[in-house]
Amino acid sequence: MKNIAILGSTGSIGRNAIEVIRNFPDRFKVTYLAVNKNIELLFEQVKLLRPRGVVIFDKEKAREFSNFVNGEIEVLSGEEGLLEVVSRDDVDVVLNSLVGFSGLKPTIKAIESGKRIALANKETLVVAGEIITKLIKENNVELIPVDSEHNAIFQCLVGENVSDINRIILTASGGPFLYRDKVDLENVTVEEALKHPNWKMGNKITIDSATLMNKGLEVIEAHWLFGLSVDKIKVVIHPQSVIHSMVEFVDGSIKAQLGVPDMKIPIQYALTYPERTYADYGRVDFVKLGQMTFLEPDLDKFECLRIAYEVASIGGTYPTVLNAANEVAVEAFLNKKIKFTKIPDIIKRAIDAHKPKFNPELEDILRVDSETRKFVKNLEEIS
Amino acid sequence: MKNIAILGSTGSIGRNAIEVIRNFPDRFKVTYLAVNKNIELLFEQVKLLRPRGVVIFDKEKAREFSNFVNGEIEVLSGEEGLLEVVSRDDVDVVLNSLVGFSGLKPTIKAIESGKRIALANKETLVVAGEIITKLIKENNVELIPVDSEHNAIFQCLVGENVSDINRIILTASGGPFLYRDKVDLENVTVEEALKHPNWKMGNKITIDSATLMNKGLEVIEAHWLFGLSVDKIKVVIHPQSVIHSMVEFVDGSIKAQLGVPDMKIPIQYALTYPERTYADYGRVDFVKLGQMTFLEPDLDKFECLRIAYEVASIGGTYPTVLNAANEVAVEAFLNKKIKFTKIPDIIKRAIDAHKPKFNPELEDILRVDSETRKFVKNLEEIS
Repeated sequence: MKNIAILGSTGSIGRNAIEVIRNFPDRFKVTYLAVNKNIELLFEQVKLLRPRGVVIFDKEKAREFSNFVNGEIEVLSGEEGLLEVVSRDDVDVVLNSLVGFSGLKPTIKAIESGKRIALANKETLVVAGEIITKLIKENNVELIPVDSEHNAIFQCLVGENVSDINRIILTASGGPFLYRDKVDLENVTVEEALKHPNWKMGNKITIDSATLMNKGLEVIEAHWLFGLSVDKIKVVIHPQSVIHSMVEFVDGSIKAQLGVPDMKIPIQYALTYPERTYADYGRVDFVKLGQMTFLEPDLDKFECLRIAYEVASIGGTYPTVLNAANEVAVEAFLNKKIKFTKIPDIIKRAIDAHKPKFNPELEDILRVDSETRKFVKNLEEIS
Repeated sequence: MKNIAILGSTGSIGRNAIEVIRNFPDRFKVTYLAVNKNIELLFEQVKLLRPRGVVIFDKEKAREFSNFVNGEIEVLSGEEGLLEVVSRDDVDVVLNSLVGFSGLKPTIKAIESGKRIALANKETLVVAGEIITKLIKENNVELIPVDSEHNAIFQCLVGENVSDINRIILTASGGPFLYRDKVDLENVTVEEALKHPNWKMGNKITIDSATLMNKGLEVIEAHWLFGLSVDKIKVVIHPQSVIHSMVEFVDGSIKAQLGVPDMKIPIQYALTYPERTYADYGRVDFVKLGQMTFLEPDLDKFECLRIAYEVASIGGTYPTVLNAANEVAVEAFLNKKIKFTKIPDIIKRAIDAHKPKFNPELEDILRVDSETRKFVKNLEEIS
C-alpha cells in the first residue's frame, strides 16, 4: 500500500488523481489533501477518502474548515503546513499539482524527505531545474513527470539510455488560436482563450496553451528532466493531441507515446510505475481518428514560445523572470485587465529589465520571482 | 567483436545488412555468407567482407564458384552447408534472411547451437511457431525480429512486461492496390504488383504486400513472437509507413516505433541490441510529412488477410498450408501463369483440402509443406 499526499487536490489534476486512486483501493491510500482555499470541495473529498489530515493554504479558510470539522481530522495551513505533510512518514508519494511558483518549496522538501515525486507542477523545474535535478541525485529519489508530454517521453525512455537520445519532439495541440491570423489575436476574449480544443485543464495552463507559453515552459522542463540541451528539443504542432510526445534515438528510430487526451493515464502511470495496471480511460481508435497532422509552430504569431526558447538557451535566472511575468500577465488577462497580445509584451519587458544571475541559489530564485512580480504589477497597464 | 553469418546475403535484407555492418568494422565481422545461387554478387561480397566461408545452396553453382576461387575460401553447399555454418563456433549471430520455408531448418539449428537469431524470415515462425518458441526457451537464446513491424513491437516492449500488453497494432502500407476497386484487381500486372509505394524489398514479399498476405503472415508471426492470442493483434492500414507498429498496454497507453522506411534501421537494432549506435539512414521530418492516415483493411478485397486471420485462429498445420500454397501461388503469379486474384483462390482450395494436425512436430510440418506444394502445383491453372 502506497500512502499519497495530493497537493492541489481540488484542481483539475487533483480531481483526476482522486478518480485514479479510487480505482485501486488495495494499492493506494490518500493520507493528506492540500488545497488553496476551495474548502467546499475539500470537504467532499475528505468524506470520500478519509485522509489523516488536510492542508489549507489560506489561513482564514483553514480556521473556518477547522471549526467545521471540529477536531475529527488534522487541519494544517499555509506553506508551513505543506512543508510539514510532505516530510511525514505516512507519505510515500507526493503528487504535486499545485499551480505555478507555489509548487517549488514543497517539491524541494519532498525530495529532501526521500519521497517519490509525481510532478504536475512544471514551474518547479522551469525556475529551479538546476537545484531540483541536483537534489534528486543527492537524495536518490524518483521524480516522475505527470505532464502528458514529459510523461510520454519518460515512458519512451523506459529500458533505453538517455545518452542514446538524438532529440525529443514535444507535440503541441496549437491551442484554440492555431488557425487565427496574428492580427486577430489582439481581440480574442478570455472565454475564447479558455476553449482548449482537446484537453480539459485549469485556467492558467489553458491560457498558457493558447499563447503556446505552456510549450515553452515544457521545453525548459524537458531540458532539466532529461538533461538535454535546448537545441535537441523540438516542438511540433499536432492538433489531434494523440501523440503525446516522441524521442528520436541516435539510430534514427523514434519512439512515441500515444493515447486519448485524458490526464488520468499519465497520473496513473506516475503512481504505479514501474508497473502498469488495467484501466479504461478510453482507447485510441486509429481508423475513427483517420489522420494525424503536423505543423511547424509559428514563432512570429506565438511569441511566447520564441521568448521561452531564447530564455531557455541563456538560462540563469531568466526562466524565473519568464515564469513570474507570465503568471502575473495571465492572471491580468483572466481578470480582463489586459489584452491577450499584451502577455508576451509584458514578459519581454520584464526580461529586458532583468539583470541575470547564473547558477542561482534558491534565495536568488525567490528574490527574482518576487522582484519580477512587483515589476510587472507596477506596469501601467496592469496596476 | 561479434561474428555474423548472413543467410541470404544477396537478397534485399542481406545487402542492407552488409551496408550496416560495414559502418561498424570494430563491432562486427562477417564470418559466413550464404546465398541461393547468385554467385556473381556473392563474389563481390566476398571481396568486400573477406568471410571465412560461403554457402551456396545450389550445388551446381557451388562447384562453379569453388573452381573459380580455387581453395582461397571454404565453399559449402546445400542445406547441409547452411546447417553446418550456423552451428560453428566462429558465429555469434545468425541473420536469417532466407526467403520462405527454406529458412526453417537453419533457424532451428542456430537456436540449438545457442546463437542470437536476427530473424528476417517470417515463414519460420508462421509454419513452426510453436516449435521455435519452445526451442528458444529451452536454449535460452535471443531471437530479435528484423521485420520492421515486429522489430517496432520488440522496441516498444523494451523495459515493459509482455503481460501488460492489451493488444498490438500492426501497421500496413496497404500496398500498391490500396485504392483500386476489387473488380480491377483481376487484371493487375506483375509489374504493377511489384511497385511497392514505400519499401524496396524482394519480389516475393512485395507481392505478399500487394495481396496483404504479408500482413497475414505477420499476424501469425506476432502471435508466436509475443505470445498473444490472434484477437489481440489488430491490423491498421497506414499508407505513409512511418509508424512501423504499436503496442497498446492495459492502461490505455500506446507506444509506437517510427522511422523512415529503411530496413537498415531494424537490421542495425537487431545486431546492436540492447545498445543503440549512431547511424544516419534518414530522419523523419514530421512537418514535411504533414500527415499520417489510418484506414480499416478491406478484408473483402484483400482476401489473403482474412484467410490468414482465420488460419491463425485455428492453428495446427493450417498456417503451414497457408504459407506453402501462398509461396507456390506467388511464384506462379510472378511467372505470369496465374492472375493476381487467383492467389487467394488457390490458397483457399489448399486449405479446404487439408486435414489438419494440431500440436505438429517438425516432421508433420515438413510433410504438410511438401504435400501442399504438390497439391497446388497439380492444380489445373498452374501445372
